[in-house]
Amino acid sequence: MITTENPTRTEISDLGEYALIEHLTREFEIKNTSTIKGVGDDAAVIDNADKQTVVSTDMLIEGIDFDMTYTPLRHLGYKAVAINLSDIAAMNATPKQITVNIAVSNRYSVEALSELYAGIYLACQRYDVDLVGGDTSASPAGLFISITAIGEVEKGKAVYRSGANVHDLICVSGDLGSAYSGLLILEREKATFKANPNYQPDLASFDYVLDRYLKPEPRLDIVKFLNEKGVVPTSMIDVSDGLASDVMQICKASDVGCEVYEEKIPIDYATTMVCSEFGQLLPISNALNGGEDYELLFTIKQADYDKIKDCNEVHVIGHITDKSMGTMMVTPQNTTIELKAQGWKK
Amino acid sequence: MITTENPTRTEISDLGEYALIEHLTREFEIKNTSTIKGVGDDAAVIDNADKQTVVSTDMLIEGIDFDMTYTPLRHLGYKAVAINLSDIAAMNATPKQITVNIAVSNRYSVEALSELYAGIYLACQRYDVDLVGGDTSASPAGLFISITAIGEVEKGKAVYRSGANVHDLICVSGDLGSAYSGLLILEREKATFKANPNYQPDLASFDYVLDRYLKPEPRLDIVKFLNEKGVVPTSMIDVSDGLASDVMQICKASDVGCEVYEEKIPIDYATTMVCSEFGQLLPISNALNGGEDYELLFTIKQADYDKIKDCNEVHVIGHITDKSMGTMMVTPQNTTIELKAQGWKK
Repeated sequence: MITTENPTRTEISDLGEYALIEHLTREFEIKNTSTIKGVGDDAAVIDNADKQTVVSTDMLIEGIDFDMTYTPLRHLGYKAVAINLSDIAAMNATPKQITVNIAVSNRYSVEALSELYAGIYLACQRYDVDLVGGDTSASPAGLFISITAIGEVEKGKAVYRSGANVHDLICVSGDLGSAYSGLLILEREKATFKANPNYQPDLASFDYVLDRYLKPEPRLDIVKFLNEKGVVPTSMIDVSDGLASDVMQICKASDVGCEVYEEKIPIDYATTMVCSEFGQLLPISNALNGGEDYELLFTIKQADYDKIKDCNEVHVIGHITDKSMGTMMVTPQNTTIELKAQGWKK
Repeated sequence: MITTENPTRTEISDLGEYALIEHLTREFEIKNTSTIKGVGDDAAVIDNADKQTVVSTDMLIEGIDFDMTYTPLRHLGYKAVAINLSDIAAMNATPKQITVNIAVSNRYSVEALSELYAGIYLACQRYDVDLVGGDTSASPAGLFISITAIGEVEKGKAVYRSGANVHDLICVSGDLGSAYSGLLILEREKATFKANPNYQPDLASFDYVLDRYLKPEPRLDIVKFLNEKGVVPTSMIDVSDGLASDVMQICKASDVGCEVYEEKIPIDYATTMVCSEFGQLLPISNALNGGEDYELLFTIKQADYDKIKDCNEVHVIGHITDKSMGTMMVTPQNTTIELKAQGWKK
């Protein structure tokens, strides 16, 4: 699975910095007319008419954010881009450009880096995003990926975390908890493999949850859908830390409370199956605290409900309340419990 | 010199991620009206009328790009910003916003990170730049800083490396080789200190070269000067790898050759003094290959010469030739030798 085991190995030092960057970026074409100048100069140049520019940045660190024993480099490259595009989506904007900084130890070959960039390329292709710059450097240990994404949005349509109002409906796209379920499977397989190196994992039945963890997709389709329906959410965030933490982020920024209905939280059957394998009766804690689902969590005015109610990919899970009511979840037994966010995860 | 030795120590895990970012960025104010939304959401939002956006990104890695034994964290923060602003300057643009990603091992305390951010803050203040986002993460080892700078330039005024034409004059700002001379001093002091830990360095007489290495300044004053004089360079780059490598970058991108006059290359007296201490007869190799001066190297039409000739900070060092002439340096003895760039430095 890991491409560093590839028999062809070119040392990064054999190529040199400029040749390496040329080598890694040679297949990236410019797709956006707003990209005036891409890779290869001191900076990229982006044209801008009457739109607003949206900028997001994030980093992924070996041993902290990913484990090389079960993360194919191609998936890692894809995911590194996807999670940044997800932040742009969470602003109600469309991503247009990215820059990629990578620091890599000499444990990695050029072939390994090429695999990583193949994943970056795939994400750029899939979401019509231009790679416009970056830096590839040596690292004393491990792999570091730092990506900045730049997007655009019509003036006045950027959506912040801070705009939720009392009585607004709380919506979430897709399903929650599946990425974390994928991670649970990968961690279990790693432990089993350590105990018995001849062990051959059969992961076929976990395809969905593994994909959700290894290759998340930014919900730009939801941004497009909302735009087509003429719905501008009052607030929005992407679910990266888990529903509990992220809904509390919106409530904190908007100075409001919330009531989320446990039975309305969308959970895929595959997630439920993994939880039962792990002896969990209910998958709700994966949805609340698992994180990395990269779904969109947003609030809309009640008046906009009719415009979104027929979309299978959008689920109304609660409503915004006065701040004094706190950030609460209502269980199927009609008990109200306080949402708890995980702290510093890493 | 190193603030990690500070007796007050707060573990990063005591604060938590959000509190840490709030803590580190609480003194940064928004200064540009184009900054619609800064730190604290999924992405920053930047307004844009009829200008072009310029984006640059770079990373600094402990043990590769800097040595903690002689780099004060405040200087490091300042430098990390400065070198990105220098890339924006090299596009003939004005920096407006930055994002900062930092990965840090638990060897660093909150106080150490605060020192780093104090330097970032100072650079933002000095150059009227807004911090608009970023990510602070754990690192398994060492300190990683990845910065993206965003600037603006009037349409049509962005200057690339690729625009130099035959007969254009080659100009450079300030002086060259001083930053590398500062590094030589720091490396020598480190070696002396290792041999004798009671050794107290006397660095006062090296103030200029140490400042040049530890606290470089982007030459935005030169961008402003050229703009005021109505001069748009035909090509431009900042001197980060050394004059030889950087002039060859311009020649390669512009598909031209060059003739640089050795005796025209500006070298400060302090650089000459350091070289003589190190037994070098001539400081020219520090200027050609030292790098990290962050001066601007640019070409102008001959017709623009009168507009820049009275500026003490701009030196004409040669001219552009046909590609077939190669990239050459003319010595004071009138010998022509080929410029050689260093390769993968790290």
